[in-house]
This record gives sequence, C-alpha cells and structure tokens, in this order.
Amino acid sequence: MISAAEIKFVKSLSQKKYRDSSGLFVAEGEKLVSEALASSFKVENVYRKEEIGEDKMGRISSLSSPSPVLATIHIPEDLSDGKLPGKGLFLALDSIRDPGNLGTILRIADWFGIDAVYASADTVDVFNPKVVQATMGAIFRVKFHYADIPELCKNAVSMGGRVYGTFLDGENMYGEALDCGNNAPSVIVIGNEANGISARVASLVTERLYIPPYPQDIPGSESLNAAIATAITVAEFRRRRQD
Amino acid sequence: MISAAEIKFVKSLSQKKYRDSSGLFVAEGEKLVSEALASSFKVENVYRKEEIGEDKMGRISSLSSPSPVLATIHIPEDLSDGKLPGKGLFLALDSIRDPGNLGTILRIADWFGIDAVYASADTVDVFNPKVVQATMGAIFRVKFHYADIPELCKNAVSMGGRVYGTFLDGENMYGEALDCGNNAPSVIVIGNEANGISARVASLVTERLYIPPYPQDIPGSESLNAAIATAITVAEFRRRRQD
Repeated sequence: MISAAEIKFVKSLSQKKYRDSSGLFVAEGEKLVSEALASSFKVENVYRKEEIGEDKMGRISSLSSPSPVLATIHIPEDLSDGKLPGKGLFLALDSIRDPGNLGTILRIADWFGIDAVYASADTVDVFNPKVVQATMGAIFRVKFHYADIPELCKNAVSMGGRVYGTFLDGENMYGEALDCGNNAPSVIVIGNEANGISARVASLVTERLYIPPYPQDIPGSESLNAAIATAITVAEFRRRRQD
Repeated sequence: MISAAEIKFVKSLSQKKYRDSSGLFVAEGEKLVSEALASSFKVENVYRKEEIGEDKMGRISSLSSPSPVLATIHIPEDLSDGKLPGKGLFLALDSIRDPGNLGTILRIADWFGIDAVYASADTVDVFNPKVVQATMGAIFRVKFHYADIPELCKNAVSMGGRVYGTFLDGENMYGEALDCGNNAPSVIVIGNEANGISARVASLVTERLYIPPYPQDIPGSESLNAAIATAITVAEFRRRRQD
C-alpha cells in the first residue's frame, strides 16, 4: 500500500528543491531499477504496478506512460574536491541545459570509459528525472561531480595535462598534430547548447579542435549538437590514446 | 491580420493528416524561417509576432514558448524512385521513431555531406514540427526520401556497393580491414531506437561493424543512442574515405 502523503512525496521528487531536501531521486522502468539495485547506489523504496495499482503508479510517475516499476534512490554524497584524481580522460560540461543532452553525454561517457564527468553549477541537475531516464542506467556507473570548470582546467594544466574544446576556428581534429595526452590528465570541455564554451573557460582551453565538415570548406549547418560533438571527439580520443 | 479559420488551419499542420491534405508544413524561429526563404523550398506564408500579436502567435505555434516568426512551407515532391543515384555516402533509416533523433541525424547528414538520406515508411514523418525544429535548418539542405530499405540495400549491392550496419557482434570499426567503399555507393543503415536494425534489413547488411567501447572487453552501457552511433560512424567514414 501507498498513502496519499507518500504519493505526493514521490511525485514531488521531480522537483529539485524536494530532491535536495530529501536527498532522494527517482528512476523508472525495469532496466533502470534493476541497474540501480545492482549498483553502489542505495535504493530507498521500490514501487510496482502490481502492488500499488495502475492508477497510483500513474500518479507517482513523471513519465507520460508510467513504467511498471519506480524506485526512490539516495543521492550519493559528492566526495570530489573538484580536482582531477590523476591521469585519465575527463569531460567538463560548461553549462549543459538540456536534460536529454546530459543523459546522452553520460551514456557516451559510460560507453567510452570516461574517468569522470565534471559539470558547472549551472548545468541541469543530473538527478532530474528526464536526465536519469536518458542515461539508460549510465548514471549508476559514471563518476559525476559538480565543479568549478575554470579551476578544473587550471588543475589539469598544473598536472601537466591538456584542456581540449571544439571551436569553429580550431585545428582539424583528425590532423597528425593532435596530441591526445596519453599518461596525463586530458579534459574535454563541452559547451552550452546555444552559446558554446564560455569565454572564461575558452581562455583556458589549451588545444582548440574542430570537427571537419564535408566538404571541408563548406560547412553545411553551423554546428553539431553538443552531445554529437562529444561523441565524435571522445570516439576519436579513444581510437588514438594508448591507455 | 489572421482569421480564426487560418489560426486553426496553421495549428492543424502539427498533425500529419492535415500536412498530407494541404501539402504544407511549419517551421518556427528566425533561423529556420530565413533558411527556408533562402532554400529551394517554396514558402507559402510568413507570420510575425509584431504583425499578428503575441496571443495569436501563441495559438498557431506548436512550441511551448512561441517564436517571433513562423512560416508555412510547401512539402516538396519526392522525386526519388527509391534507387541510389550512383556512388556516394548514404544513410538508410530503418524505423527511426523519435523526432529529436531524426532531426539530429539530418543535422549530422548536413555537416558530413551525406549524399541522400532514405527512410523506411514507418520512420517518423520528417515534416513533423519537432523534427523540423531539431534539424536546425538541415531539413532545407539534406536530400531526404522515403524508400523501401531492403530494396535500397539490394540496389547498392547490385551497383557494386556495400551496406554497413552497427551490431554488438560486428567487427571493430577502427580495424584496418574496414573498406569504406570509395567510388561506390555506400549505405550506412541506422536501426530503430529500441530494437536496432530489423532482421530483414540485417540480412542484407554486407559489413557488420561495431563501435568499440572502452575498455574494449567491458562495454559499459548496452548500446549507444541511434543518433550518436550515426555520428561516430559517419565521422569515421568521412575521415577514411578519399572522395
């Protein structure tokens, strides 16, 4: 059974202020809930349609077609001090606003074994239910931290690493000259969907890259979607890096 | 001025049956409307907020925050006979259902100069307003046709070309063995978001590819999003092909 107060509480977790005050977030669907249960995340409660009924399931769900199962899960403590742990391949999200993009980026990070993802404070909340669903479970595996991105860039350089970003006037990413930074911390910065990489972060990028369009001298559209550019860049780094 | 009947008519174009009966679709926003006007598409009408007022703009718009400008545009006649025009790099969409994915795939096709995109009849309608918006204008530049995908695959092979698809048991896409099919028609098949490439189309794929995860033996998530896999594959083909 589930009380009216509990229905209201679970439903409230679609809003950040209630996630913050309770320390809980929601994941829906067999796949996500089973991945949550198998992960290091602490699951608080699991609600199943056959136990609470379709009507109540519809009321606690934030999806248009409610899943057969929904879990409330504890938001893990962010133990990062905002510094890089050492060498590796990292993503730094400079104000990603679209929940679907953030979810997709975590899925890419999961596939390509990104060592950790750092996001600016104005990036969409990673425990927003739309983000959680879009990760397809990657949220339970990828290391994710909020951090000061300019400080993170400086930290990478101070450790002998590099900071990469894509710009329309950057160097062809497929050129021989690109050093993907084996055995050093490499941070790939992903800019905001509408405005790209912010001026402050752009000034700290050490390697300005460009994903060449085809034909090379006639770019068709003005830009690629943030998640698409991330995927192409990360795939190329993984193809080249020796670690 | 805009009459109540015209408001109702423009609003109705968010539904496929009214697009089919009128032969018109809608694009919103300064960027899309100016790209439509600069393209080979025939624009029927342009509605501006300063002319018809914010209230009426809100009523004809299908966006949650209405744009300052909206255009009704003629759906161009599909002159393709469902056969490939010759050598080149093509995409074949095997039942893409998500409007955002289709829009993103057209944006990728535009950036990487794909010669034409073919879609199965059960792919989401390309003139759906969510698709149009997600293309960011690529819809006005990319050649797009509905076609019988199995027939298209056979057509490619009969012309000495190849048909590529990504599968979890495919060959590493970055391997030396991959022949990207320079100077022949190359068709990259993109499968459905939930079910992948259909059995019938899969049986016609001549080169089964795999985007290697990292570490190579431990895939993190089970799959990449359809648009993400498309982007990584197309970028690699463009890096390798000589045309």
